[in-house]
Amino acid sequence: MEGQTIITTQDVDELFISTVVRLIQRRAFPNLRNIIAKTHSADIARWFPRLRPEAKSSLFTLLIEENRMGEVLCELNAADINEFIEETEPATVVSVLHTMPADDVTRILSDIPEEKKEELLNLIEGATSEHVEQLLEYEEKTAGAIMSPNYFALPQETTAAEATEMIRDLTEIDIPPITFYVYVVDEENKLKGVLSLRQLVQTKPGTPLKSLMTSHLYTVHTDMSQETVARAVARYNLLAIPVINSIGQLVGIVTIDDIVDVIREENTEDMLKMAGTGDLDITSRSIFRNTRARLPWLLASFAGGLLAVYVIGFFETQLKQIAALAAFIPVIMGMGGNIGTQSSTIIVRSIAIGEVSIKDTWRVLWREFSTGALLGTTYGVLLGGFAYLFPQFREYAWKLPLVVALAIFVNMMIAATVGTVIPMFFKRVNIDPAVATGPFVTTAIDVIGIFTYFLFANLFLF
Amino acid sequence: MEGQTIITTQDVDELFISTVVRLIQRRAFPNLRNIIAKTHSADIARWFPRLRPEAKSSLFTLLIEENRMGEVLCELNAADINEFIEETEPATVVSVLHTMPADDVTRILSDIPEEKKEELLNLIEGATSEHVEQLLEYEEKTAGAIMSPNYFALPQETTAAEATEMIRDLTEIDIPPITFYVYVVDEENKLKGVLSLRQLVQTKPGTPLKSLMTSHLYTVHTDMSQETVARAVARYNLLAIPVINSIGQLVGIVTIDDIVDVIREENTEDMLKMAGTGDLDITSRSIFRNTRARLPWLLASFAGGLLAVYVIGFFETQLKQIAALAAFIPVIMGMGGNIGTQSSTIIVRSIAIGEVSIKDTWRVLWREFSTGALLGTTYGVLLGGFAYLFPQFREYAWKLPLVVALAIFVNMMIAATVGTVIPMFFKRVNIDPAVATGPFVTTAIDVIGIFTYFLFANLFLF
Repeated sequence: MEGQTIITTQDVDELFISTVVRLIQRRAFPNLRNIIAKTHSADIARWFPRLRPEAKSSLFTLLIEENRMGEVLCELNAADINEFIEETEPATVVSVLHTMPADDVTRILSDIPEEKKEELLNLIEGATSEHVEQLLEYEEKTAGAIMSPNYFALPQETTAAEATEMIRDLTEIDIPPITFYVYVVDEENKLKGVLSLRQLVQTKPGTPLKSLMTSHLYTVHTDMSQETVARAVARYNLLAIPVINSIGQLVGIVTIDDIVDVIREENTEDMLKMAGTGDLDITSRSIFRNTRARLPWLLASFAGGLLAVYVIGFFETQLKQIAALAAFIPVIMGMGGNIGTQSSTIIVRSIAIGEVSIKDTWRVLWREFSTGALLGTTYGVLLGGFAYLFPQFREYAWKLPLVVALAIFVNMMIAATVGTVIPMFFKRVNIDPAVATGPFVTTAIDVIGIFTYFLFANLFLF
Repeated sequence: MEGQTIITTQDVDELFISTVVRLIQRRAFPNLRNIIAKTHSADIARWFPRLRPEAKSSLFTLLIEENRMGEVLCELNAADINEFIEETEPATVVSVLHTMPADDVTRILSDIPEEKKEELLNLIEGATSEHVEQLLEYEEKTAGAIMSPNYFALPQETTAAEATEMIRDLTEIDIPPITFYVYVVDEENKLKGVLSLRQLVQTKPGTPLKSLMTSHLYTVHTDMSQETVARAVARYNLLAIPVINSIGQLVGIVTIDDIVDVIREENTEDMLKMAGTGDLDITSRSIFRNTRARLPWLLASFAGGLLAVYVIGFFETQLKQIAALAAFIPVIMGMGGNIGTQSSTIIVRSIAIGEVSIKDTWRVLWREFSTGALLGTTYGVLLGGFAYLFPQFREYAWKLPLVVALAIFVNMMIAATVGTVIPMFFKRVNIDPAVATGPFVTTAIDVIGIFTYFLFANLFLF
């Protein structure tokens, strides 16, 4: 069929991207214009991380000429957005921003340096300017900051036919293309109910919205966190959630396509925090920024390491007598660290998806402690057996095996418990448990592990 | 306004849940019936993890009586679903399943033991039976397995008015409540195009769908992974994606509310895999199952630990002379492990969100290597300085500080590189990089770290 393009989504189309990259580098602009016309903005955005700086500039220029830069800009990663804004004339940047929805403009402006933001804000005009300034007033990562101020709301007395008529006249700039709900408000713009486009289609033309709408509906406040918004939309299977201010007026909506981005972003953040990389922007190519984000988190581990130096230094005489003791430090530390990471990851993730809350502290603590005890027993027997059978350690008979078996058992039990307690404690005091985990848990476990090991050694071997 | 319930989503309403739990345990059924009638199924599902087994049974019975069990079942976690199915008469289970959409029934059946599944399948009747058997044929976690077979498709010649008329007659059982798209097919049910309800409302009644529809649309094949489906829906901001079979026929749709669940599930899996807990079901309360899922992954770490015993055992004579060497094992291992985890988490996550692909191997390898070198230099200087100034190690003058500084520098550089290479390699050979990381990376790094440390010690100290 003529003009039909049923695109079956491919996971990664590396070959196509390589071709495009070559065309850009060869400045084959006529071909590129054709390709750009047929390519989704989200796919165009994926070319950028492969391009050299000069090639990026040419593509920016080409996209501006083709009136596609606004759409593409929404899809770029932070590093590429910054490059675009720094390299392009402010007037041109603003002309691109004028083609974009206010919530996307706001998201972009809140990610760039303060000075640049002010400069651009002064140049933005009309409704966009007003909307963006409003959205920028809300704290980052709240419902207010991520909502779209372009919703579709009508008074309660409107009839279905009138509503349909009004939808007919809307353009994609008035409301997001995926609008699915019609909100019903009173004369003060207070939210009264909601109905879906489908309900509108399914009813008699004369019916007033008032008798069509559901007045049992879920909303969020402007100052709620984007995580809370995401959880509500996911839990209640909504396509959009209305955002209300402190006096119940409808001020915006958050649509599910933005929620999908929020969920991805929050998950990335959680994983990076747990790995101790702070607020690292993983799209950044700067080695210096990468280093700076990771350095402080390694300090916790470093401090723990120095403490371990001190603890082991304490047992220098014993080590001189039985140097074999040193050989078991890595396995005892490693096993503790790994089981602790397992426990803390399970707890952090369970808290994040709402599976575990503070109420469950004793239950999960008992589960992790018991698991630690079972796994500790298993690996204690294995390590003791190994130490007993390894020819080099024969001279210590049953004593060294006993010490290492007990040490790994106790350490794994403690590690699983510490890996549970730390994130639960952080949750209780309202600190993000993901931050707590990673470096903190492993460092605590390392030091405790070394200490109990040498304690047992002292008890049985000397 | 009478009967209005604007619900502002609360993050966690612990107090309410506690009250409900008490009511169930006190068997205050009339009160509970009232509460159930007013509560969303997703919220009812959240009561279960707090309930004792007897209380769970009473709530199951109550929900069946109130005709809410089907809705709630869709929202329960795997452990609670299993409890319901094991405790309830198969005939009752099936009557509940008959009230549910086919895709949800399929999801539930594919998670329970084979024998029970067969028993229930034999009891299921009518269209549900047919649909479920079809969906069960697809491999787990593919587009075919997660799609809903209830989509809304019409022939190309249908007019907008006829389409609107047909939508009017649909019930929520025919198509999902969040239906937003109308698919257009030819006489062989091959997908030809799509239009939105909004377009339908915005057009003249006599227009045929053929001239309204977009024929530029995104689809997925039945055998594509749910991750690919999720990425497509997220990337192109779709509310649903049509699923086609090998000859281009429309066989189902995957809606965005299911995609949100897929994204959460995939993220949980990635995090757990990276922490080395395999396919652990974090909702399970069984200590035994918990232990069994985690045990094998710890083996990698254990084997690495034994190798370290061997390596260090090799240097026993040196250790007897300079016992202080042992004191630095934990800090050198710990810092390597942490920086390696940082790198591998960054890489695994970058791959998962499509930020990094095989093409970028050299670029990210260089970034991580350089970051490792910079961080290694920093902590090398710090550790060397500490060793030089710590009174206990005075006797070794500059030699011990030099050894530990060099060891931590080289180890951190190698660790960052290994943490990058391992997931990139797994990606290249099409193994999930998340599995590769965690235990494998830390174990490799531990052993390499110990080895280089003692190599430097041997070189400068003896």
